[in-house]
Amino acid sequence: MKYRDISDALAKLDQIEATAAAYYHAIGILTTDAATAAPSDSYEGRGRTMEVLSGVVYNLVADPENQELLSYLETHKQELNQFRLRQVELLRKQVDQLSRIPQEEYVAYTVLLNQADSVWCKAKNENDFASFAPILEQIVEYNRKFAGYYNPNLCTYDALLNEYEEGLNMQTLDEFFSQLRTALVPLIHAIGQKEQIDDSFLKRSYPIEQQKKFSDYLMEVMGIDPARCTLAETEHPFTNGFNSRDVRITTHYYENDVANSMYSVIHEGGHALYELGGDQSYDFTSIQGGVSMSIHESQSRFYENIIGRSREFVELIFPKMQEFFPEQLKDVTAEQMYRGVNKVQPSLIRTEADELTYCMHIMVRYELEKQLMDGTLQVKDLPQAWNKMYQEYLGVEVPNDSQGCLQDTHWSGGMFGYFPSYALGSAYGAQMKVFMERDIGPIADLISKGELSKITDWLREHIHRYGQLYKPGQLFQMSCGQFDAKYYTDYLTEKYTKLYNL
Amino acid sequence: MKYRDISDALAKLDQIEATAAAYYHAIGILTTDAATAAPSDSYEGRGRTMEVLSGVVYNLVADPENQELLSYLETHKQELNQFRLRQVELLRKQVDQLSRIPQEEYVAYTVLLNQADSVWCKAKNENDFASFAPILEQIVEYNRKFAGYYNPNLCTYDALLNEYEEGLNMQTLDEFFSQLRTALVPLIHAIGQKEQIDDSFLKRSYPIEQQKKFSDYLMEVMGIDPARCTLAETEHPFTNGFNSRDVRITTHYYENDVANSMYSVIHEGGHALYELGGDQSYDFTSIQGGVSMSIHESQSRFYENIIGRSREFVELIFPKMQEFFPEQLKDVTAEQMYRGVNKVQPSLIRTEADELTYCMHIMVRYELEKQLMDGTLQVKDLPQAWNKMYQEYLGVEVPNDSQGCLQDTHWSGGMFGYFPSYALGSAYGAQMKVFMERDIGPIADLISKGELSKITDWLREHIHRYGQLYKPGQLFQMSCGQFDAKYYTDYLTEKYTKLYNL
Repeated sequence: MKYRDISDALAKLDQIEATAAAYYHAIGILTTDAATAAPSDSYEGRGRTMEVLSGVVYNLVADPENQELLSYLETHKQELNQFRLRQVELLRKQVDQLSRIPQEEYVAYTVLLNQADSVWCKAKNENDFASFAPILEQIVEYNRKFAGYYNPNLCTYDALLNEYEEGLNMQTLDEFFSQLRTALVPLIHAIGQKEQIDDSFLKRSYPIEQQKKFSDYLMEVMGIDPARCTLAETEHPFTNGFNSRDVRITTHYYENDVANSMYSVIHEGGHALYELGGDQSYDFTSIQGGVSMSIHESQSRFYENIIGRSREFVELIFPKMQEFFPEQLKDVTAEQMYRGVNKVQPSLIRTEADELTYCMHIMVRYELEKQLMDGTLQVKDLPQAWNKMYQEYLGVEVPNDSQGCLQDTHWSGGMFGYFPSYALGSAYGAQMKVFMERDIGPIADLISKGELSKITDWLREHIHRYGQLYKPGQLFQMSCGQFDAKYYTDYLTEKYTKLYNL
Repeated sequence: MKYRDISDALAKLDQIEATAAAYYHAIGILTTDAATAAPSDSYEGRGRTMEVLSGVVYNLVADPENQELLSYLETHKQELNQFRLRQVELLRKQVDQLSRIPQEEYVAYTVLLNQADSVWCKAKNENDFASFAPILEQIVEYNRKFAGYYNPNLCTYDALLNEYEEGLNMQTLDEFFSQLRTALVPLIHAIGQKEQIDDSFLKRSYPIEQQKKFSDYLMEVMGIDPARCTLAETEHPFTNGFNSRDVRITTHYYENDVANSMYSVIHEGGHALYELGGDQSYDFTSIQGGVSMSIHESQSRFYENIIGRSREFVELIFPKMQEFFPEQLKDVTAEQMYRGVNKVQPSLIRTEADELTYCMHIMVRYELEKQLMDGTLQVKDLPQAWNKMYQEYLGVEVPNDSQGCLQDTHWSGGMFGYFPSYALGSAYGAQMKVFMERDIGPIADLISKGELSKITDWLREHIHRYGQLYKPGQLFQMSCGQFDAKYYTDYLTEKYTKLYNL
């Protein structure tokens, strides 16, 4: 027997986890640096470093001794607490997956993704899909192949979905999206018949320096500790959390679109609160961090929409907003601002979409990902398919690929199966609102009083602090019962029926 | 025999160097991130990661097999070219040093330095030397102990000096500083008798946003490729070069001191050009990067002073400077600007010192470091000793430790023996000017025409491209003959005699 006793085996597990955490941290900082501060020509050196570091991580997880360690711990399950059981479960999954991925493929894929980001970024800036297509083809092929490594028992796309949300599959999503379509399409159609909300004041010139100060203010209102979370600028906003005392969020400023960065900051801020709210004792272990993309998006989109686009929130921050932008907002009221940031209008860009048509953008990507993964769509035909679906789902004409299939960073990051999380997370959030209000009363009242901390406390208590201790479905069920899309469609129907006097 | 042949052994050497380069890169990015973007509470996680990564680097270099590899290569010296010989020499030095440093001390010191930066930063901001003293004591003790590991044949401070400049010792420096003192003290004294230059316009309000644009312009004038070198903001400006396509410089903006960041950018830009100018084939090997701190400072201070504070450079950039700051500079001429940025006035802060009194700041640090290292000065007595020497060397009263012994980041970074490089590098630069002008004519004419690239080309040809291929003394001698401080004192005497009509 290799291990003297259970604590000897657990010490070995701790050592593996601490080492892995260090490498993930270094890789994460290199990734963050690449997107925020690195010179554009620096990719070769970073690629080499990523190759070395990810090779070590591969070896750490794929180490044949881990099989022995896991077997030992799995035969001593009755002696392990929930934390240890979950560590074992997560390592088992990783070990089994990596044992199926040849090291050279794993490392080559990591290196490919490092290159892909700058290729995509350039292609998007220059509206040149053709220059991105070859690398995207490779990424698609890797994903199709890796899906089989991840879970050989599932079909390709289900295996990828499971990487972002354990237990999710196309059957669930087809049904979920069908429910959404049934509720939302008539609503969007009815709104299309009504008079347009005027949001032209959002497109005035808002100096970026002032927007930066406004961002700091928004983070303060959300209760994000600047000593633990900093904000940077990137092409596409993201959150990267390393532990409960080191989280990074990013935004992108547009001088003529004040709402864009505003809601990016609130969205990423929601992700940040989740990462910051994890039990500190989970730091540097596999239990640290958000458990799934849907739960993560439930937090970000809860903050962005349910809080950030509520009348009460807009009323709360509007006086301060007017201080930051006195000229731009001198003839605007809080009510106009509330209506402006909730204007429903089918459009081209997902991240700028209103809360209601947003899910349509996700459905386009979901359908296209399914087709790319089952081989019925080729990468070269993606722009055409994209444009066709935008016409069909949103009724908009896509003028170029920069505003079309090149708009998102996800595919260049290899993240196929991620997009549905946005819609599912939004629906999770709406259900959380109902269950939260049973405990702490109407959140509208709390927001009016600026008591966002009470909302965050509830989320920390029921979601954040657990990190990855439970599977996402289980975690959700513990606080909100059985998932039902109706909470979400009810929330949207009520809000927009009222807003548009339907 | 472990190695089949020489190319087998060199392949092993290449593998060690590539791996080391990856880890140094990751550690360097973590360090840069810590100073630029990381939240202040994030140090624990970074410390853990640094500990893991630096432990790996330690093992990589301390690997007993390296002794075998080096012995093999050393017995086949006649088959190695200059590049390979130098790689072997550098690895030999590292291996011998590390074989003397116990791993736990090496790692503990790395972790200590990671903590020290934020402790120093806080202490400086709060003028609280007492809170920094305990960690500084530990750093001093590590340096005293490590000096013996670095080179057991040298006395403590000489061993540390050698870490920054192979071959440098106190005897050389005592003589060098004595020459400087002899030439500069009467000059500074004579200037003290003359009417003060008015530089009050430099202290007007210069919006930081405009200063940022001005920085970009300065980098452009210097010919720094933004695709290979980016600029960030930190408490204390620095340069971090990873390879010839990835260099980072930083500055610190002060709204009421436009010259501060201006000359930081030019200074760090000089470092950057050195790192960017290395032969690309040296990237990811031990030959990449600047060979010593004095040679590095020769480049930065050449750009900062010999170019940046020349009348021709100020005349070149002044029209553009007036565009960035039209209100602030509407009543200022290029000549006034030239005189303003060259005003000689003994002062408190090294990085803000004029070119002439600058060396006095270095001498204070040199004398104090000698005493700290030979044990005749205790850390607790440092503020008092510092203040006394500032009175003696510069005739200024130090009002608090923030502006006194807490002002520089070097000691919190463990860099004892570094400061003399600034003075020595300045002297190297003055000698380079003379030898450069023999080849390309008066640089004043080139600067007037905006042809800085011809100057950089000479430096690249004679210094930059070689990376660490030659020892610093050898490299200097190859292009500029025997070092003689007289070139520097002559340069300063001529410039300031003219400027002040002495």
